Amino acid sequence: MITRMSSLFLRTLREDPADAEVPSHKLLVRAGYVRRVAPGGYSWLPLGLRVLRKIEQVVREEMDAMGAQEIQLPALLPRDPYEATNRWTEYGPNIFRLKDRKGADYLLGPTHEEIFTLTVKGEYTSYKDYPVILYQIQTKYRDEARPRAGILRGREFLMKDSYSFDLDDEGLSQSYQKHRDAYIKIFDRLGLKYVIVSAMSGAMGGSASEEFLAEAETGEDTFVRSTESGYAANVEAVTTTSPPARSVDGLPDAQVHHTPGTPTIESLVDFLNAANLGRTFTAADTLKNVMLKVRQPGTQEWELLAVGLPGDREVDFKRLEAALDPAEVAILEEADFAKHPYLVKGYIGPKALLDNKVRYLVDPRVVTGTAWVTGADKADHHVIDLVAGRDFTPDGTIEAAEVREGDPSPDGKGTLVAARGIEIGHIFQLGRKYANAFELDALGADGKPIRITMGSYGIGVSRLVACIAEQSFDEHGLVWPRAVSPFDVHLVVAGGKNAAEEIKAGGEKLAEELSAAGLDVLFDDRAASPGVKFADAELVGVPTIVVVGRGLANGVVEVKDRASGERVEVPVDEAVARLTEIVRG
Amino acid sequence: MITRMSSLFLRTLREDPADAEVPSHKLLVRAGYVRRVAPGGYSWLPLGLRVLRKIEQVVREEMDAMGAQEIQLPALLPRDPYEATNRWTEYGPNIFRLKDRKGADYLLGPTHEEIFTLTVKGEYTSYKDYPVILYQIQTKYRDEARPRAGILRGREFLMKDSYSFDLDDEGLSQSYQKHRDAYIKIFDRLGLKYVIVSAMSGAMGGSASEEFLAEAETGEDTFVRSTESGYAANVEAVTTTSPPARSVDGLPDAQVHHTPGTPTIESLVDFLNAANLGRTFTAADTLKNVMLKVRQPGTQEWELLAVGLPGDREVDFKRLEAALDPAEVAILEEADFAKHPYLVKGYIGPKALLDNKVRYLVDPRVVTGTAWVTGADKADHHVIDLVAGRDFTPDGTIEAAEVREGDPSPDGKGTLVAARGIEIGHIFQLGRKYANAFELDALGADGKPIRITMGSYGIGVSRLVACIAEQSFDEHGLVWPRAVSPFDVHLVVAGGKNAAEEIKAGGEKLAEELSAAGLDVLFDDRAASPGVKFADAELVGVPTIVVVGRGLANGVVEVKDRASGERVEVPVDEAVARLTEIVRG
Repeated sequence: MITRMSSLFLRTLREDPADAEVPSHKLLVRAGYVRRVAPGGYSWLPLGLRVLRKIEQVVREEMDAMGAQEIQLPALLPRDPYEATNRWTEYGPNIFRLKDRKGADYLLGPTHEEIFTLTVKGEYTSYKDYPVILYQIQTKYRDEARPRAGILRGREFLMKDSYSFDLDDEGLSQSYQKHRDAYIKIFDRLGLKYVIVSAMSGAMGGSASEEFLAEAETGEDTFVRSTESGYAANVEAVTTTSPPARSVDGLPDAQVHHTPGTPTIESLVDFLNAANLGRTFTAADTLKNVMLKVRQPGTQEWELLAVGLPGDREVDFKRLEAALDPAEVAILEEADFAKHPYLVKGYIGPKALLDNKVRYLVDPRVVTGTAWVTGADKADHHVIDLVAGRDFTPDGTIEAAEVREGDPSPDGKGTLVAARGIEIGHIFQLGRKYANAFELDALGADGKPIRITMGSYGIGVSRLVACIAEQSFDEHGLVWPRAVSPFDVHLVVAGGKNAAEEIKAGGEKLAEELSAAGLDVLFDDRAASPGVKFADAELVGVPTIVVVGRGLANGVVEVKDRASGERVEVPVDEAVARLTEIVRG
Repeated sequence: MITRMSSLFLRTLREDPADAEVPSHKLLVRAGYVRRVAPGGYSWLPLGLRVLRKIEQVVREEMDAMGAQEIQLPALLPRDPYEATNRWTEYGPNIFRLKDRKGADYLLGPTHEEIFTLTVKGEYTSYKDYPVILYQIQTKYRDEARPRAGILRGREFLMKDSYSFDLDDEGLSQSYQKHRDAYIKIFDRLGLKYVIVSAMSGAMGGSASEEFLAEAETGEDTFVRSTESGYAANVEAVTTTSPPARSVDGLPDAQVHHTPGTPTIESLVDFLNAANLGRTFTAADTLKNVMLKVRQPGTQEWELLAVGLPGDREVDFKRLEAALDPAEVAILEEADFAKHPYLVKGYIGPKALLDNKVRYLVDPRVVTGTAWVTGADKADHHVIDLVAGRDFTPDGTIEAAEVREGDPSPDGKGTLVAARGIEIGHIFQLGRKYANAFELDALGADGKPIRITMGSYGIGVSRLVACIAEQSFDEHGLVWPRAVSPFDVHLVVAGGKNAAEEIKAGGEKLAEELSAAGLDVLFDDRAASPGVKFADAELVGVPTIVVVGRGLANGVVEVKDRASGERVEVPVDEAVARLTEIVRG
């Protein structure tokens, strides 16, 4: 197939768009792949649509290969099913809602667990029908608070979402693993550099979950990885390495000290080190008790929660929220303190919390036998050598403390370093949340109902266009991996409108021959200057550029590798064979 | 490719769905192609999606072949551009509207003239850039008052919409003709029986326009066709055949008669025929003056309009509206009559209308020299032999009278008969309406701006699935044309779960061989009874059914043509060759 630039709906831009910050956004706009229509709403111009369709096809092939079946659901969905799972409410302002002419409520689907569950319930009845994996590749909508970075985070985007339906946990594990394997194949075929990170469930509610993150400095998602192993995880999913529990025998007794003017950890440590107690204290020796309140979904009441963590660490609110999900959590306000006079701000200790039945969760480092400096529940007083498991027993542990570079990797190998990425895939064991909501049962061999267990799995198809671009560019423009390039070959006729007729004719002939050999040719037959044409070829980013120019008189054309910049002269009568070899690999 | 029915997400139904009236709706639901999710919102199950994609691909190939370029615009669109063309208001309750989290107004695109115009304006500047034809195949939304007939008239549907941009009328004509030719190829490839009818513009505003209607008794659109020629048209587009104008010389003078008790045409005709006036009157001899009011877009004021037409015909409101488009029109109310005492209800004649400067348009049959019985502007009085062109001169003609079977065909050949169809395509010369709204100009060779002229062209891609089904079924189920069938061959292993191992193995082997030969095989490997399998095969409607059964012992399989019901025994070792020949044609 030959696409002629003389008539192609493409105008490249010399300047970066004013609203673009990340490279993929700048380049996809400059090279004429996408155009902004509204906040988070983009048009796909011919080049962009070709890349999008190639990615979509790779996704489809691997989904089909794993035995998933493609269907397509509406994007405009009625409220009722989302009411049944409470997501109509939970989504808050993050979905687009609308009413039809009769006043009935609808939403634009951000993800389709409800409707897939109902779809399977509508067709299947027997245990013999299962397992089944269904998917769709569909335009989805989310009313993002801050649409940004072009198609990286849009409000209308193309997604592959799939859902597995199994009779038991073992089946769910297999469906999950099938997706994991398929995603690896997909992202490998697309030439992406990515990591698979453990993830916590968000609003979805469930158990095992991993995210696929494309590595990108501009990524919105932070994750950590081990310096020595393949371990990688969302910060929310990092588990703290606890020291071993120790015997409390022979440890010094707890002593209350008058510590005037020590409202902060820093001032407390300074005070203690100045007090000649025979040892040196650091912030890590103190136990800071952070007061929060928690509200379970569907209830009105807030419940007190204290989180105890080493004084050298802050609470990471994202980790805290993930640990408490689906409950809501908030910092305790002055008014709340006033209602609980036993809470002496700045000097709260485990004793008052436990005596007053405040739920008290501690950092996993607070194991039996560890001794702490903490509040004595009295203004200007702290207690030293308060020993966990001897002087207080918390209600449990919680992963709420910040994760820091240098922390030990949870797998015991190496330490953690931070990195940034862009979520490109998510696999997730939902369990029975949706099956429960809609009573999705299979009739078992014994005549008894079996509640189905589900998984949900997403790939951001349109986002992948930007992710790949984000990993594939240089100062001159885009550099597509061959698997997703809009064309196989970019054929440039050099010489402008004054190009010799032989050169023009040679270009035409080569374009025809390459097309006949089954290659998709972007043919720059414009009457533009060679400089303009070469700059556009670099910007557009087709991996192989062929120049038909003055060399033709000597029977050669130039073949340039876009990525390496390497140029070779190829005899024109070998060009088709050589290029076919390069393209087919 | 082999698709096994043992795991295919398909459950056929024995009963018609309760809400289905038309055959396509019943059968597409029963055969498991689509499922209803909401009013006018359907899911495409695996079989349905395959048919949809095949149709989409045929449309794409022919659009590409004519040189149109595919792009894709958002479906969620900002209000502003639609405000600029007044369509935000004009669409009334027929579009879905919503607000984002910031309160900004959006709509779900029902058609994309505005955004395509802005897209071209964003890229193109010079006359050298034109012409260009762009298209998309995209999910569209309309808040239909009465979604019906399954996917025939949904609220979410897949459409191909294209737009042409030309420098002059001649170019627009060519772009229009290209589309017309491409549509003929598309609908021919899809095996549809259809007619091309002249159509009036609706809310779009423009000039030349034709609709492609699939012939279907259940169709919502009425059209007329000639008994003797290829003429076909929407009722709105039928032009009335006028008698030749005649000389007024020697015609009898107009005379006012006292006609008590004749408020209706029927009572008037009876009265006249009982009055011994020396001739016989029919309703067609009377001139009925219908009082209306008209409001131009963007104005508040209603203006009076009288339409005069032969008394044997009613006003067809759709024709009236089309003739007055884009103005609004309504029947004159009592209150309006009260304001204009010269309008004597039941006895209104041309004289009072013209004397009072009421705009007066008549049916094209009211030509100079025709004599009429009409109101004398005085209660209980009519005038006889009031001659057009002598006694009154109307302000013009209007196509507002009903079209009837037996009316002469506008092309002068034969008479009109009524038929029903479903709109599957629409081609439309928009002219400069949208280019004017957005000032889409090209810089001409002389440095002067050239206002672009546009066309818009639609095909209802998802609707076509139903239209084809509506033309392709029998009492047993669907009968797909080969070009859109979800599979090439439906291979049934007969014998149920007790089928001999040789038969099962023979079926597997044949399925593999057919797949290896490049055919898409729907393989019924279920442990169901032959009766169930055969019934499903008929219902699903793949054009060629192959049965592997007891004949295999004698080395034969049965090949059945779904449409004709014809069965032939084929030696199993010739089956692949024979079937490939049947499928490839």
